[in-house]
Amino acid sequence: MNTAVVPPPQLLALDWGTSSLRAFLMRDGRIIETRQSGHGIQHLPAPGTPGYQQAFAQIAEDWLRQWPQLPVVACGMVGSAQGWKEAPYVRCPADIQTLAGQAISVPSGLGPDILIAPGVLFDEPDELPDVMRGEEIQIAGALLTNPQWAVRSCMLLPGTHSKWAQIETGKIVRYATYLTGELFAVLSKHSILGRLMPAETDGKKESDPGAFELGLSTARSSGPGDLSHQIFGTRTLGLTGRLPHAALADYLSGLLIGHELVSGMAGSGDLASVPLVMIGAPSLCERYAHSLRYFGQSVDAVLDNTAPVGLWNLAMAAGLVGKH
Amino acid sequence: MNTAVVPPPQLLALDWGTSSLRAFLMRDGRIIETRQSGHGIQHLPAPGTPGYQQAFAQIAEDWLRQWPQLPVVACGMVGSAQGWKEAPYVRCPADIQTLAGQAISVPSGLGPDILIAPGVLFDEPDELPDVMRGEEIQIAGALLTNPQWAVRSCMLLPGTHSKWAQIETGKIVRYATYLTGELFAVLSKHSILGRLMPAETDGKKESDPGAFELGLSTARSSGPGDLSHQIFGTRTLGLTGRLPHAALADYLSGLLIGHELVSGMAGSGDLASVPLVMIGAPSLCERYAHSLRYFGQSVDAVLDNTAPVGLWNLAMAAGLVGKH
Repeated sequence: MNTAVVPPPQLLALDWGTSSLRAFLMRDGRIIETRQSGHGIQHLPAPGTPGYQQAFAQIAEDWLRQWPQLPVVACGMVGSAQGWKEAPYVRCPADIQTLAGQAISVPSGLGPDILIAPGVLFDEPDELPDVMRGEEIQIAGALLTNPQWAVRSCMLLPGTHSKWAQIETGKIVRYATYLTGELFAVLSKHSILGRLMPAETDGKKESDPGAFELGLSTARSSGPGDLSHQIFGTRTLGLTGRLPHAALADYLSGLLIGHELVSGMAGSGDLASVPLVMIGAPSLCERYAHSLRYFGQSVDAVLDNTAPVGLWNLAMAAGLVGKH
Repeated sequence: MNTAVVPPPQLLALDWGTSSLRAFLMRDGRIIETRQSGHGIQHLPAPGTPGYQQAFAQIAEDWLRQWPQLPVVACGMVGSAQGWKEAPYVRCPADIQTLAGQAISVPSGLGPDILIAPGVLFDEPDELPDVMRGEEIQIAGALLTNPQWAVRSCMLLPGTHSKWAQIETGKIVRYATYLTGELFAVLSKHSILGRLMPAETDGKKESDPGAFELGLSTARSSGPGDLSHQIFGTRTLGLTGRLPHAALADYLSGLLIGHELVSGMAGSGDLASVPLVMIGAPSLCERYAHSLRYFGQSVDAVLDNTAPVGLWNLAMAAGLVGKH
């Protein structure tokens, strides 16, 4: 250990989701050290508060012994109704000040409290409501490192529950969730479609770009309501031999991503004049970026996980760290 | 037994699907006697041909002992690649003559062969292919009892894999399958949406007509690609308290049926001048008929299972029974 010559950290940031806990020691908005554990909120060492405290202690106890005054902030499902303590949703339009102002605190069990970020609610009359928890901090991270996007931008966070968020003057003004990744998973695993798919085709790698693009083009030419017929096409394209069975997952993936793009782009205003920014795992972002290009839409930037920087932004807004 | 005074049957018709086997003793196009067993092709008493022969003997042996020359016809998954013997698909346009001409025979093990109906394939360039197996015989039944629909009609068979079939001059000229029922089942049972649904809400009964109609109206106002966002609404309507949890399955059901209707009606030509006929289980047909009325579309007729009459039609076309 050579900590004497390294400046001390200023923040401990926790990205605490359903299946994992990631801890980031930060200084000046940058990550000094990263740790990860499997203690997501559904995989705690014990039920309830003791489980959260144990999981936190296992990942951070030595850090807090060394720096007992270190502020701690967290985001993700740890603040859900099923989490350590519920941090209620704040309504759109929401910016980092709104989030910090409605964050809640929970005793860490090791000295400092943990400040947990709220989620964001979109709830307007005559529209479907929507919820996010965790993505708002990723967006706050992207806006901190690229303040030009705060003026106006569209942030796309692909995944199990993809989010398309519209940013104006630093605020999330509206957004929509698409169940794309989960729809792919349940259809592949639990519907008749999976019967023709070879077991190794788990959709994680694109084995047949032509089949993926057939899914995209099918989505592009679709009318309202067509999706469940086109989903059934996954089976009939295989039965008729038009696609090899190993390519059926690619067709389905392209179809579902394509439908998300058709709707998401239509709901994002004039994307020719507004930056489109993607945040997420690089391989998934690449698949989406390819799909967007296929639809004639360029992508202004692709960012990997911005949650740590977003948590830094939250800590600044809460007065826990200074401006860097 | 009082068979001496009853005219003998002319046909044994088998509706042999995945989960059950139904046998109909018929005369003059009418059912004399019905039997049912659980020996669907996935629930046979033994694997392969012996299992089919045993299942057939259990349900029909005494009948064939009494009338050894009785012709036997069958439809459904018994003719699939996973069935007793594969009866290949015939291509659209297909009528009852086409079906009879390409039906295949398999020895019943009790004397007569069984004539198994083929399925129907829709396979045109630049369109998604589609398959049906069993519905073509139900359609043939509806056309036999209501020949006026042969000129031109739209037949809707709602279910796990709903079919919208366009009939012209007695032929199925094109059709489309919608995965509606299966999509509802896998989303309710295997996705995050099920977490908010009370266990007893299995979607079989409509507990909240308002929630069902919210699903319909959401579908009606949707643009291309919107479905997976609207599906996520099942969760957010519950989380925000806009719908009680017990009503979420109704919203999802209305949404999925509504999407099917939007697309199916758009693909069925001018339904103001073409009869729309529904075939299927009465409770499900009623749910669809209600939805169609909500969309401003009347239904000309609702028929319960027409497979027995359709099998009679097949037997006539194959020369196994005379015109009645």
